[in-house]
Amino acid sequence: MNVIIRGQTRPYRTVTFDANRNAVLLIEQRLLPHQFEIAATRDFRETAAAIRDMIVRGAGAIGAAAAYGLAQGARAFRGRDLKKFSRHVEQVYDTLQSARPTAVDPVNAMNDVRHAMRRGKSVEEQQAIALAAAEEFANEDVQHCEQIGRHGAKLICNGTRILTHCNAGWLAFVDVGSATAPIYAAQAAGKKFHVFCDETRPRSQGATLTAWELAQQGISHEVIADNAAGHLMQRGEIDLVIVGSDRTLGRTGEVANKIGTYTKAVLAKRHGIPFYVAIPLSTIDWKLKSGFDIPIEERHESEVLGAWGAISNRQSGRRAYVRVANPTSGARNPGFDVTPAELITGVITPAGIFKPQELWKCRRALGFGG
Amino acid sequence: MNVIIRGQTRPYRTVTFDANRNAVLLIEQRLLPHQFEIAATRDFRETAAAIRDMIVRGAGAIGAAAAYGLAQGARAFRGRDLKKFSRHVEQVYDTLQSARPTAVDPVNAMNDVRHAMRRGKSVEEQQAIALAAAEEFANEDVQHCEQIGRHGAKLICNGTRILTHCNAGWLAFVDVGSATAPIYAAQAAGKKFHVFCDETRPRSQGATLTAWELAQQGISHEVIADNAAGHLMQRGEIDLVIVGSDRTLGRTGEVANKIGTYTKAVLAKRHGIPFYVAIPLSTIDWKLKSGFDIPIEERHESEVLGAWGAISNRQSGRRAYVRVANPTSGARNPGFDVTPAELITGVITPAGIFKPQELWKCRRALGFGG
Repeated sequence: MNVIIRGQTRPYRTVTFDANRNAVLLIEQRLLPHQFEIAATRDFRETAAAIRDMIVRGAGAIGAAAAYGLAQGARAFRGRDLKKFSRHVEQVYDTLQSARPTAVDPVNAMNDVRHAMRRGKSVEEQQAIALAAAEEFANEDVQHCEQIGRHGAKLICNGTRILTHCNAGWLAFVDVGSATAPIYAAQAAGKKFHVFCDETRPRSQGATLTAWELAQQGISHEVIADNAAGHLMQRGEIDLVIVGSDRTLGRTGEVANKIGTYTKAVLAKRHGIPFYVAIPLSTIDWKLKSGFDIPIEERHESEVLGAWGAISNRQSGRRAYVRVANPTSGARNPGFDVTPAELITGVITPAGIFKPQELWKCRRALGFGG
Repeated sequence: MNVIIRGQTRPYRTVTFDANRNAVLLIEQRLLPHQFEIAATRDFRETAAAIRDMIVRGAGAIGAAAAYGLAQGARAFRGRDLKKFSRHVEQVYDTLQSARPTAVDPVNAMNDVRHAMRRGKSVEEQQAIALAAAEEFANEDVQHCEQIGRHGAKLICNGTRILTHCNAGWLAFVDVGSATAPIYAAQAAGKKFHVFCDETRPRSQGATLTAWELAQQGISHEVIADNAAGHLMQRGEIDLVIVGSDRTLGRTGEVANKIGTYTKAVLAKRHGIPFYVAIPLSTIDWKLKSGFDIPIEERHESEVLGAWGAISNRQSGRRAYVRVANPTSGARNPGFDVTPAELITGVITPAGIFKPQELWKCRRALGFGG
């Protein structure tokens, strides 16, 4: 998507590769929205560190970063001994996988690359295939998001007022995003509409990342406190809700997503407002049989007890943490919640829009062989 | 209630009067929870400034501050001329009223004091009556809150997990508070329970003031993000919700309170969790016929776009504002919302607990003559 730098609009992807320098290029997401910088990792160890330290975050984006990181590591190998090369590639794989051990996307992405490499008969051939396969993975991520956008854009009309929660935007993918894909597609179709971004405490990804994205794209938007959505719905000021998902259960249609998603779904149901979840197929979990079996990560209490921001209002303002809450109080900090299928109007996928209760019935169309 | 200062527990009221120094003593609420200080206003103009600048806030607390301010101004008069004295008192009244022109409590409180003063036959007598009447107003505020506590404490058992929103605590009154009154009364009765404080973005009164209050009283509590209550209810971790109210409509039972209250009421209804509103009688509006007629204040966007806190974690940490959101994004910031009667289990008043739909039928018991 576009980034405005000193008044100039330029297209960027979250993750790309510089073949000449053998470097993975990443938007430094920890500095957003106050600074825009591209980090270039010089070797696969730096790429693993970038994934671990959340320079890059989001399912699709870390998948692509790991795929590129594997190619980067493979291309750094000197010599013609295929056995030594294979051992080296395994080491690169393990290093990149251990950067975010519970994430599934880096593993899937690197398996794709490794599988493709087997076609190569020499080190040199395998190195070339590795990069081509990583590029293909990244391009497919973009295509899937664009397909989500095509299907979801039909839900947006001129004047639609959309609520979104957290960041399931292009920063979480290679480009376009999932929940934001219909928004960008509707804009490309010339529609005029407005987006309310839940600030999404405690980590404020809506106020920081989603608001930044929409501002770069020139989309009309406002940040609201998480407390305000109910009031705006009651007064008839929200027409449509679109969110992303970290895990969607194929068997039940339950959706795990950032804490607060469930609350917005309950409010939307009460007010008869359509509530959509936009997901790539890779986030569908075909195994689990109940949302109560999804482990809910309990995160550090400091996130709830304070806030990160810029001391001055300028883009280059120094970032600091302020303790907001009473210094002698503790906090509970569940990171995710689970929304039942009955509250979800539809699931927007690259293969079309499905009712959450129909995912299992339509599993073949959704790429599940079982 | 109690305040812990350097390990020592001492009782304080939010607003008191020092007759020797003719000074109104106020807990400096703008510095909480990071610093505890008592501000002493030397004359009625300083008291008016303290109300205007929110050193003291909350319905009952600013009522008492204005009553004491009127007595303070009256007592500063030198001379025996009753006519000159009366003109002086009117000037004091106008100055104090203009500090928070839309608030009703200072007006009611000062009218009580002025009415009582008419009994005095000399300047000296009227000065003495003014102080006595202000003390009486403050004591009545405390008594009403204690009565709320007595009725509400019955709702709390050993092990009850209570959710509260914003600060309707003793800092908003002279002492005890409204939503917190049942909590303090249950504690005094020896019950053991737990309180979840919604942080209450954007101004974070739950994380700052309510959490501070509960910590001073030694009550088990945790701060949660406003997004987390739905998840905790879904997992069966909340048994009871108690909130305050800025205005309750006597004719319809609708409750205006801090933004986010409506959302919590919708969630509580879905999960069959009792939802109570605790109010002194002075916040019942017997005139308005619909919650949609309650003007909803739209506050400054900077509240949503950033946060105030302490740079270091110590009580004396320097306070600073950090800009959290994207610097080129704006915000909507409605300050209040309206909860319909059907979502409210009961209204806890000094006169007992009423169903919100029964307020009008019981208006005589609730002190409304009409």
